[in-house]
Amino acid sequence: MSRSAVPPPVTQAMDAAQMWLPRLMAAVEERLAALGGGHGATLAEQAGATLAAGGKRLRPMLVLLCAGPEASPGAIRAATAVELVHMATLVHDDVLDAAPLRRGRPTVVARAGRGTATALGDLLFSRAFAELTADGEGPERVSMLARASVALARGELAQRRDAFDLAISAERYLERCRLKTATLFECACRIGADPGGEQLPLDAFGREIGLAFQLLDDVLDVAGPPQRTGKARGTDLLDGTVTLPLILARERDPSLATLDLRALDGGAAEAICDRIAATGVLDEVRDGARERVARAKRSLDSLKLDPERRELLALVADGVVERYA
Amino acid sequence: MSRSAVPPPVTQAMDAAQMWLPRLMAAVEERLAALGGGHGATLAEQAGATLAAGGKRLRPMLVLLCAGPEASPGAIRAATAVELVHMATLVHDDVLDAAPLRRGRPTVVARAGRGTATALGDLLFSRAFAELTADGEGPERVSMLARASVALARGELAQRRDAFDLAISAERYLERCRLKTATLFECACRIGADPGGEQLPLDAFGREIGLAFQLLDDVLDVAGPPQRTGKARGTDLLDGTVTLPLILARERDPSLATLDLRALDGGAAEAICDRIAATGVLDEVRDGARERVARAKRSLDSLKLDPERRELLALVADGVVERYA
Repeated sequence: MSRSAVPPPVTQAMDAAQMWLPRLMAAVEERLAALGGGHGATLAEQAGATLAAGGKRLRPMLVLLCAGPEASPGAIRAATAVELVHMATLVHDDVLDAAPLRRGRPTVVARAGRGTATALGDLLFSRAFAELTADGEGPERVSMLARASVALARGELAQRRDAFDLAISAERYLERCRLKTATLFECACRIGADPGGEQLPLDAFGREIGLAFQLLDDVLDVAGPPQRTGKARGTDLLDGTVTLPLILARERDPSLATLDLRALDGGAAEAICDRIAATGVLDEVRDGARERVARAKRSLDSLKLDPERRELLALVADGVVERYA
Repeated sequence: MSRSAVPPPVTQAMDAAQMWLPRLMAAVEERLAALGGGHGATLAEQAGATLAAGGKRLRPMLVLLCAGPEASPGAIRAATAVELVHMATLVHDDVLDAAPLRRGRPTVVARAGRGTATALGDLLFSRAFAELTADGEGPERVSMLARASVALARGELAQRRDAFDLAISAERYLERCRLKTATLFECACRIGADPGGEQLPLDAFGREIGLAFQLLDDVLDVAGPPQRTGKARGTDLLDGTVTLPLILARERDPSLATLDLRALDGGAAEAICDRIAATGVLDEVRDGARERVARAKRSLDSLKLDPERRELLALVADGVVERYA
């Protein structure tokens, strides 16, 4: 049966929003496209492709849901800025991992080299902060985004420090996920509210779906299939990044605790993915992620939220799981 | 004769300032040290060393001179932030150039690898913006620094785009210098003034000494000596970066216009440096840089400035030339 007959939850969210969310998202896309086209040839070519390649735009959608139907220009700029920071980290991550593909397309580093990709990441990052000051607003949003960016970089540093260490704990792994992924989701759930205005207490919601997102991402790296993920299985292992599936699997299959990750090639990494999957931990990690999404959705119940926004937020939460389904 | 018997101009500037400049600079150093120590082991180790390695702190000194003896906490944070952005670009530049040494010390990338160095650059960059919002100030300074950071990244992208192209023009080269170097000096000469307060019209001053700085840097890459610069001669050539000395030299020695920069090794690059020097262009570029410094100093004459600050700014301008002398 073709999946395309049933619109996925995020699409449903867009439909359900009676056009206010798509209208605001279109404004964000317009800002992103303008930024890609605004700075000379290489940038237009590389950043244009990077910005256009898209992805699900979960973070700006959260910003706008947090802002609501009457989102100010400042909220639209905040949504744009959060996505720019996210893109900057993707571009830099691909440089570090020497990744040939993302979302099934050649990465910036693969097309244009490390120098251009690093500088392009820096540019997207700088543009994010410039975007937040374009309206002459106060420092609140800059402060939120700067703190989230600091956390992202700290998470990346922690991951580098932990690289190739098979003994790291699940707690340490989760702290990394919090820094690398959950803080930007949390930020997205705060930064849309106009400074001084109503602030929806969505921190826990953002954090939980952010963690779920990272957990499922790490499952995908083991499970594939590459046709769906757009990248080879086991790329985390090749980078020395030890994630929860391996941390749990090494308890069930002690031979996994004595691997030499530095000696892997692509084939060996895939074979280890098979051994991790054989222990049955992937379902456990998936269940943990789904439980976090469920918890995030339950956290909405206690909030004073209009039903439409509650439904839309729940659908975005489902969108995090959907990418795996 | 030992040079150390005569204090260099920047040191004289510090003396002449009757302690207000050293006092404010010490506050900046304190902020920088606190940021290096504040984030876990790797960061403390790597960033601590990076922050401590120093350099001349020309940019924060300009920020503070622009702010004056009664510099606010916001101005001190601005001085810190400008230096953090500068450091972030140095760390990323060293990753891209795979540079083993800077200022005679091992670079972050040489000690800790590309991943850690890239993430550390991102962290320094994020901390710069976080630093600017710590006092709850308005967006003016964030906007200035974000625009300067965008220019830095655009300059880096332009340099990558021009790489290995022996035909680029002097105008194109100067535009790159403006983006990569002069805008942050310009920013340093603006960002210290309290928003809404007196703004010294020092843009031209900052731009000219920034361009002079870059011109002399590019002469140093050709002229060395390595014992003074802390890096091998011809590293720009090895990176494919065509700078003014080569652009001018190719007119005098046409054989330099048909080099294959991609085929160079260290020895061949040094030999090309000798050929560039033999054309006599290095004095021409040095003279051009000195003329810019002189112009920057003359630009101070027309400003309503107290004599002490004028003298100190002139001494910082001399400090740009001093690094070559």
